[in-house]
Amino acid sequence: MTKNSKPFMDRNFLLETETARDLYHHGAKGEPIYDYHCHLIPSQIAENKRFANLTELWLSGDHYKWRMMRALGIDEAAITGDAPAYDKFRAWARTVENLIGNPLYHWTHLELQRYFDIYETLTEKSAPGIWAEANGRLEEPELSVKGIFEKFKVYAVGTTDDPADSLEYHRAIAGGIAPIGPIATRVIPSFRPDKALHIDLPGFAAYIEKLGAAGGAEIRSFSDLLAVLEKRLDFFVAQGCRASDHGMEAAPFVIAPEGEIEKTFENALAGKPPSREAADAYKTKLLSTLARWYARRGLVMQLHLSVIRNSNERMFKLIGPDMGYDAVHDREQAGNLAALLSLIESSGPEGLPKTVLYSLNPKDSYPLATIMGCFQDCYGKEENREVIRGKIQLGSAWWFCDHLDGMEAQIRTLANVGVLPAFIGMLTDSRSLLSYPRHEYFRRLLCNIIGNWVEQGHYPPDRDKLLEIVRNISFGNARAYFGSI
Amino acid sequence: MTKNSKPFMDRNFLLETETARDLYHHGAKGEPIYDYHCHLIPSQIAENKRFANLTELWLSGDHYKWRMMRALGIDEAAITGDAPAYDKFRAWARTVENLIGNPLYHWTHLELQRYFDIYETLTEKSAPGIWAEANGRLEEPELSVKGIFEKFKVYAVGTTDDPADSLEYHRAIAGGIAPIGPIATRVIPSFRPDKALHIDLPGFAAYIEKLGAAGGAEIRSFSDLLAVLEKRLDFFVAQGCRASDHGMEAAPFVIAPEGEIEKTFENALAGKPPSREAADAYKTKLLSTLARWYARRGLVMQLHLSVIRNSNERMFKLIGPDMGYDAVHDREQAGNLAALLSLIESSGPEGLPKTVLYSLNPKDSYPLATIMGCFQDCYGKEENREVIRGKIQLGSAWWFCDHLDGMEAQIRTLANVGVLPAFIGMLTDSRSLLSYPRHEYFRRLLCNIIGNWVEQGHYPPDRDKLLEIVRNISFGNARAYFGSI
Amino acid sequence: MTKNSKPFMDRNFLLETETARDLYHHGAKGEPIYDYHCHLIPSQIAENKRFANLTELWLSGDHYKWRMMRALGIDEAAITGDAPAYDKFRAWARTVENLIGNPLYHWTHLELQRYFDIYETLTEKSAPGIWAEANGRLEEPELSVKGIFEKFKVYAVGTTDDPADSLEYHRAIAGGIAPIGPIATRVIPSFRPDKALHIDLPGFAAYIEKLGAAGGAEIRSFSDLLAVLEKRLDFFVAQGCRASDHGMEAAPFVIAPEGEIEKTFENALAGKPPSREAADAYKTKLLSTLARWYARRGLVMQLHLSVIRNSNERMFKLIGPDMGYDAVHDREQAGNLAALLSLIESSGPEGLPKTVLYSLNPKDSYPLATIMGCFQDCYGKEENREVIRGKIQLGSAWWFCDHLDGMEAQIRTLANVGVLPAFIGMLTDSRSLLSYPRHEYFRRLLCNIIGNWVEQGHYPPDRDKLLEIVRNISFGNARAYFGSI
Repeated sequence: MTKNSKPFMDRNFLLETETARDLYHHGAKGEPIYDYHCHLIPSQIAENKRFANLTELWLSGDHYKWRMMRALGIDEAAITGDAPAYDKFRAWARTVENLIGNPLYHWTHLELQRYFDIYETLTEKSAPGIWAEANGRLEEPELSVKGIFEKFKVYAVGTTDDPADSLEYHRAIAGGIAPIGPIATRVIPSFRPDKALHIDLPGFAAYIEKLGAAGGAEIRSFSDLLAVLEKRLDFFVAQGCRASDHGMEAAPFVIAPEGEIEKTFENALAGKPPSREAADAYKTKLLSTLARWYARRGLVMQLHLSVIRNSNERMFKLIGPDMGYDAVHDREQAGNLAALLSLIESSGPEGLPKTVLYSLNPKDSYPLATIMGCFQDCYGKEENREVIRGKIQLGSAWWFCDHLDGMEAQIRTLANVGVLPAFIGMLTDSRSLLSYPRHEYFRRLLCNIIGNWVEQGHYPPDRDKLLEIVRNISFGNARAYFGSI
Repeated sequence: MTKNSKPFMDRNFLLETETARDLYHHGAKGEPIYDYHCHLIPSQIAENKRFANLTELWLSGDHYKWRMMRALGIDEAAITGDAPAYDKFRAWARTVENLIGNPLYHWTHLELQRYFDIYETLTEKSAPGIWAEANGRLEEPELSVKGIFEKFKVYAVGTTDDPADSLEYHRAIAGGIAPIGPIATRVIPSFRPDKALHIDLPGFAAYIEKLGAAGGAEIRSFSDLLAVLEKRLDFFVAQGCRASDHGMEAAPFVIAPEGEIEKTFENALAGKPPSREAADAYKTKLLSTLARWYARRGLVMQLHLSVIRNSNERMFKLIGPDMGYDAVHDREQAGNLAALLSLIESSGPEGLPKTVLYSLNPKDSYPLATIMGCFQDCYGKEENREVIRGKIQLGSAWWFCDHLDGMEAQIRTLANVGVLPAFIGMLTDSRSLLSYPRHEYFRRLLCNIIGNWVEQGHYPPDRDKLLEIVRNISFGNARAYFGSI
Repeated sequence: MTKNSKPFMDRNFLLETETARDLYHHGAKGEPIYDYHCHLIPSQIAENKRFANLTELWLSGDHYKWRMMRALGIDEAAITGDAPAYDKFRAWARTVENLIGNPLYHWTHLELQRYFDIYETLTEKSAPGIWAEANGRLEEPELSVKGIFEKFKVYAVGTTDDPADSLEYHRAIAGGIAPIGPIATRVIPSFRPDKALHIDLPGFAAYIEKLGAAGGAEIRSFSDLLAVLEKRLDFFVAQGCRASDHGMEAAPFVIAPEGEIEKTFENALAGKPPSREAADAYKTKLLSTLARWYARRGLVMQLHLSVIRNSNERMFKLIGPDMGYDAVHDREQAGNLAALLSLIESSGPEGLPKTVLYSLNPKDSYPLATIMGCFQDCYGKEENREVIRGKIQLGSAWWFCDHLDGMEAQIRTLANVGVLPAFIGMLTDSRSLLSYPRHEYFRRLLCNIIGNWVEQGHYPPDRDKLLEIVRNISFGNARAYFGSI
């Protein structure tokens, strides 16, 4: 608008200093992507899925976008209903214009730029042209799954999978026998046994039956459950699994005798829901047992805390789960989380696996970042093993925190009370193949923060060291942490 | 102090970029004010109240100022005591000098500039001159209520009123028969039934008796109470009421059978205070009932959370309630609040009224902003009605959050996880007629944030769209949301 | 790195504006230091301790540094183990390189610059040279305790002492009979009766026995305890004590009859641990009693909230307490804290002592800052005494909050809802004599914040007033608050 303005989202987007521009363009930008936590659908990868149009690609599964459309008063028909694809797209275009300050504004335009070479802004007016142009390109090989993986140098993707899953698509991809053919990207499963842990949610008994079937054994007791879960875990590891994942409102911490836990489990199978205390004792026992299994196998444990799920009951009944009705919880986290990690580690220095702590609530960032500091690895030498660098991690800003302010806060918190250069960096947490520019977004911001520190005289202009730091946070640390499969 | 400094609080105060200056001076500045939540005293409006001197105007009811004076060690005599008016003013002037970084510093000088054309800074030294000059102007018609309303283009003020209130002054003003005469500003009551909800506070039974008297019916049971409250609500609506308001430490959420609630109510009338659980069940029932009434009448429900009131018992006994002894609470909010809204909406899409969520504690901002996103309107078309844009709102930064940092945080939070252009904007929450510059303060900050985004290349320099956004947040959205009476 | 960059940590480090530079160099910089809360070891002061090498000086007791080394995967042998001194130093140097954005990076280089005149950055490569150069200077008189006190103009240090302590070193120093000889710095004890309050921690009974021995009386009852504690407090006051200190997870607030408290105490002596409720009743009673004693003697009460201590049980068993295994807690604070202060003040306006509220959790800052505002002094004149300016204080950013972001947040929070110029400013909270540059760090940041306000036109460029403000926050306020002994 004025002569000092920067152009809209050009090559130096977010890069306010020369140092930042140098670090980004010569350091972070060229690094591969280790997308260690995402929700891509393995079957879509296997079939090298192509999309009919921008609506299918952008709007068919993205509750971030749906929430914004609802806030603007758009009919649900044009959101998750049966309006024609183009109408939905136009409704989205009308929404985008109003997303000033929202990360979706930037993601949308990064995606148009990087995937479609479209540099126009999306508005209701520009919608028809962009619709035509982008759809026209969807048939190009660069916009197949394989093409996207190659273009963005995706080294690995960690999908999120239930222990009962057959992993058939992972196996087909790894074996080079899926329609997509041989690809360089590692598509690896992550072990997410939430349904086995949430003994207090409806459907628990049915799930346990399903899990037993997958494990080839009927599960009648808690010890049966453990046996099947460990078997499934080994199966996952054989398919390349490097990480587990757990979602919960808050870390459980109740100690109870094994007998009680057996009883709680058997009651739950019989349809008798546990008290909150009994459920937490069960979860404490199961989670600490799983954790030690992860540690023994060198796996990473991810804990995702502070989510309220499906909080609108009316909409849940109408359109089901995971439709954009989740929110940030605000329960106390620190006491139980610290006690749980201490319990797990009490079995020995190798009892606690590598762990990533995420919370959806920004108020938890200092408690988590400092609890992290209490469980870093040590006593390596005496035990004849290597000490793990950055064993416990403060998870990347995530979901409702995944915007410039949230990412900056996470980076600064980590730097303030921890060691930023040991950070494993960004993940997409996304169901969409269009989300890789979120890594770019993160890397630009990271370089910008560091560039500001340097140009303000807070850190010396040691270019080699700085390039090493941004490259490692972009890729190298994640590869070392999760493993270079 | 140096050649790059901006002058002190000049016409470009807070406006750091050319874009910000353009948006403010050509967009936000000229918009009317819809002050939808304030604590003006209707009788003072009706009588077109004039003030004897700056002390009466500034210091007679403003606990924000009193707290600062106490922090500086000023005698209570010169605060709420019986010191002469000028001594109080001088004590305040001495305090002001020390309010570097405090919003009162800016409010004070905006008020001197806008109401009195005084551009000097207030210090102990300048106090005598300012006292004389400002007091001399208090007789001018521009400094009457009517003059102030006209000068600041006050479209509407929403006062805060008890259901037992006769609304006689509102009626006199609306009828053009008050001493102030016919005015363009709508003076509309808001329905604040706190005393009927707080069954656990002293004085409940006496209040219920008073409410019954106002409603022309003795209240002996919970159903009597409901009948009277609904009658009063309709009376308020007939007087132009567009909103309700509720203040509480935390949203209640306990479900109990009607019979128990009747019993709790009857016990309370008989002087037997309820348990916390019983009180919460009563509040859950009453609040959810009220909410559905609001929805049916198109009213807005405001929830003000996380306040500790009158926390200094010694001072409460000495000088009474609301004298500047309140603080920010830190209770868990998210779980119960989400459950309560879900309960209210469970009666149907029109069960939940338009709702504004405010918390006094900044830690609640992400929980509230994301819970907001779970209850936006939808399914409009199928039900043959219009979908409401921005149905649920994250309330403006308020009270102890009403400073540049707090307002910026609120705006950024909203933009990060919601749709900023649907925001209904600022309110004064004030007892004082001198508070309209708080809207100016907010608008300047808003334009500045947006200007920075544009000049940093985060949003395109689409002037028409940007002007539309700042004008709507300044006025248009509130008018559409509360109604253009 | 580029032409607009500021040099690395030069004389204008952190000072972004001309105003900031003027205020720092001509105002804050020259002020003495009143380090009212630290953990210096009195015996080391008394003996005018000298250190053999940088490792002993920097790494022998500093858990801030240990935590960073652990996060980087350094062997514990080189942290708290028995590796040679130089190996530990080199491991630290390797860590420092990675502390971009961390306050330890700045503290380390400020210490090298101010104590050793070393302006090189510490890296693994520069480690040998810096080791040799710094160690070589350790014998100079300027690097004795006395030399350091003189160089930094340390007016007073408030150590942290147990009521059972003999204070022999304080007495020797005060009497000029310690090896250090007569010094200008006041070395004054602070009264920290945590062990007497924490009736629920192991070792309570043994501690009470020790306390009785120090007080010359066997403690068999709660009233015995009170008698001994008051005697010890008077002994501390006679040795110059100006402040007490209390560390706790959260403020207690449970009211119980004296008889119950006696019983709880006697049970604890007999080895029967109290319930949480009984423990809180005991703490409420004891703390409120102590508080009134403090008030009567003009002492300051410091409350340090929201700490999880020794959270890693395995490491606790291996290497003991206070080895860097603490974290930020997140319990609710506001309700109980406000009620406790109200209870203490209920005995009269002089019941509540001067109080400093610190929390380790940033989420508590607004609750604490506003509760502060509810208990400022008042009604002075009527009672024929002076009103205390800034009687209640929001404590300086502390421990895990003691970085640029945390200090800036504390200063802005205080300015937003309180009176910044009444602030008593910084403390080191350190066990190390090398920590005085943390005052410099704080003062630079303070001047920078104020400089920005002035140059942005938020406060007038009144140089005399601004210099007065920064000088008072640097030193004068603390001297007035704690007393110019």
